[in-house]
Amino acid sequence: MKFSSKIERCELSPMRKFHPYALAAEAKGHKIYHLNIGQPDIETPKAFFDAVHAFHQPVLAYAPSPGVPDFVEAVRGYYDRLGIRLNEENILATTGGSEALEIVMACILDDGDEILVPEPFYPNYNTFIRVTGGSIRAIPTRPEDGYHYADRAKIEEMINEHTKAILVTNPGNPTGTVMTHEEMRLVADIAKERDLFLVSDEVYREFVYGGEPLATMAEFEDVAENVIIIDSVSKRFSSCGARVGMIISRNREMMAQALKMCQGRLCSATLDQIGAAALYSVNPEYFAAVREEYKARRDTIVEKLSAIPGVICKCPKGAFYLMASLPIDDADSFQQWLLEEFEDHGDTVMFAPGEGFYGTPGKGKNEVRLAYVLKQTDLERAMELLALGLQAYNAR
Amino acid sequence: MKFSSKIERCELSPMRKFHPYALAAEAKGHKIYHLNIGQPDIETPKAFFDAVHAFHQPVLAYAPSPGVPDFVEAVRGYYDRLGIRLNEENILATTGGSEALEIVMACILDDGDEILVPEPFYPNYNTFIRVTGGSIRAIPTRPEDGYHYADRAKIEEMINEHTKAILVTNPGNPTGTVMTHEEMRLVADIAKERDLFLVSDEVYREFVYGGEPLATMAEFEDVAENVIIIDSVSKRFSSCGARVGMIISRNREMMAQALKMCQGRLCSATLDQIGAAALYSVNPEYFAAVREEYKARRDTIVEKLSAIPGVICKCPKGAFYLMASLPIDDADSFQQWLLEEFEDHGDTVMFAPGEGFYGTPGKGKNEVRLAYVLKQTDLERAMELLALGLQAYNAR
Repeated sequence: MKFSSKIERCELSPMRKFHPYALAAEAKGHKIYHLNIGQPDIETPKAFFDAVHAFHQPVLAYAPSPGVPDFVEAVRGYYDRLGIRLNEENILATTGGSEALEIVMACILDDGDEILVPEPFYPNYNTFIRVTGGSIRAIPTRPEDGYHYADRAKIEEMINEHTKAILVTNPGNPTGTVMTHEEMRLVADIAKERDLFLVSDEVYREFVYGGEPLATMAEFEDVAENVIIIDSVSKRFSSCGARVGMIISRNREMMAQALKMCQGRLCSATLDQIGAAALYSVNPEYFAAVREEYKARRDTIVEKLSAIPGVICKCPKGAFYLMASLPIDDADSFQQWLLEEFEDHGDTVMFAPGEGFYGTPGKGKNEVRLAYVLKQTDLERAMELLALGLQAYNAR
Repeated sequence: MKFSSKIERCELSPMRKFHPYALAAEAKGHKIYHLNIGQPDIETPKAFFDAVHAFHQPVLAYAPSPGVPDFVEAVRGYYDRLGIRLNEENILATTGGSEALEIVMACILDDGDEILVPEPFYPNYNTFIRVTGGSIRAIPTRPEDGYHYADRAKIEEMINEHTKAILVTNPGNPTGTVMTHEEMRLVADIAKERDLFLVSDEVYREFVYGGEPLATMAEFEDVAENVIIIDSVSKRFSSCGARVGMIISRNREMMAQALKMCQGRLCSATLDQIGAAALYSVNPEYFAAVREEYKARRDTIVEKLSAIPGVICKCPKGAFYLMASLPIDDADSFQQWLLEEFEDHGDTVMFAPGEGFYGTPGKGKNEVRLAYVLKQTDLERAMELLALGLQAYNAR
């Protein structure tokens, strides 16, 4: 019995593959500061739980395949406030942004097809893309340029007869890069000119720290047929475990194709969609407070990290991640050592090794992604642990 | 921009494609008796909601990718009571049986691969299989033989160099067929001899009406490497909207491959898994009562249906479905007519047209699948509506 060539090409998640070692460290009584996963510690708004508790139907029944109407309407209202007019047909509720990506990739990619993605990128894109038989063609960037990729020549030289789409993450995971309006327009223009789908993963939309207006590729009416938005409540409302996301597109044929898969898997979880609908009623102060909190965390982590000898990092403009290069050869080995050999007063630290975020072989081996999802004092301690760990690791 | 050849080969669900017409009928004030979807009206056990309400963590965080430990342990305990010893590594929590199927198919099927499935079969299998580039090779059956397929010659003649797996649904959807122990053994033997995966969809395990012991392909220790069980809480505990299912296999490599996809999509919904874990604490009387209720419904629907002139059906032994052939040419047209043109005192009825359940072109056009998921009086009214509808349709 052979497994499929597609799954053989997939890998374990670089954010989650150290989970067994983490459990072993915890079993030894060690405390781990988790900067490896984008799991914020911000409280989930009470509105979610209130709505779930208010559910009193005797049967927990299937939801409609395209989504619970109240949720779809809440999403419509949210985009309306961003100045984007959507019909309910433009929205499909999914099981997290993850399923949205999975469905979209299955709809647009065939064996041998390519999708352009600026690297470093969210590693799970590989899984969603490889299971279709397609592959990522990485648009290279350099940390020294702040991971800048929105350059006409740079993107156009990667397009070939296999290219089906461009996928951007804005604000960026893992780099925290935020596209300017001009950069967004440029990428949209290229997609339109070259007849490519433009998949825009905007799950971190609210997390911008320079006063930028909330942006979406859906703004560009003239490329509405090309644009497919990936969105989610996970980060926006610190409700990752709800697994509620959405596909948004004005391309009717795209939505009709995606609906086949939505019907195939019947529906996304009913109660979570009911809770998620209520999340959209939180007031604007919620976002202002969360943004302030993350901005302060970003400033703290950048300050502390920059002070560690040999570490190179730039100040990210959005999301809650940053990439940094460490004075080591291999972040994978360093992470394993941190879990198996290191502790300071019983504490250690986790990050996501950088290699998995790159499409180009050999790149990112000494880089790490840090998620600044912990409160200030914990972040400070985590940076202290990283500094101590680096010192001890290099002194072995 | 072209969509993938794989999604083009997929179709809308025959159980859900009439949803827009149903909405239109409801907008006219019509009441619809839904026999089209396996959505039971049995109350979801209170244990689910109690567990959900007892969740008081401030952050609704991601669950572990393989599943919430309490849920995995609950499943282990359930199988233990069936005499099947599992480790936690043998269980992966999924977003319904649907995602379990999706992941398993992605792990075992490549472009051009075939999987044997007795027809008629659950139509969404087509979606999960076609998006991999694989296809179903249907093992033909005849209603006159009670849809019997567990025949060595019949199965072996369908196996060729493209065959990767056999997929059985036991108890069967849409036929309600329950395999005997000898039939299960036969299929397991063939899978082992021919080195094929044996995917056994057992989500209706508890729904058997002839006093049969609860059965699973996991019983056969000697084919443990071949067997992959698809399971779910949806039907077992009337909690379809929770979207909690699982992949069960003792094939370590299979579970390692599947874990790549589980990590890729991060996790299945946290609260629903917590609720699902609690469901496994319901006492055996729950199942006895539910089984009695469905058995009575089955007897009612078979009696009423058999009495309609021109209808052919056999008494199913399990699940909560039956296939019947109607005295019409095309069940699709008849369904549309029932929604658009027919009503009796404002009532009409829905079923799932049979064609979508067949892999062989042209088969099943005059057949329908009926889900006996409504209480007795509603079922009786639904059969009355079907009889009136047939009479009026054929008298046009």
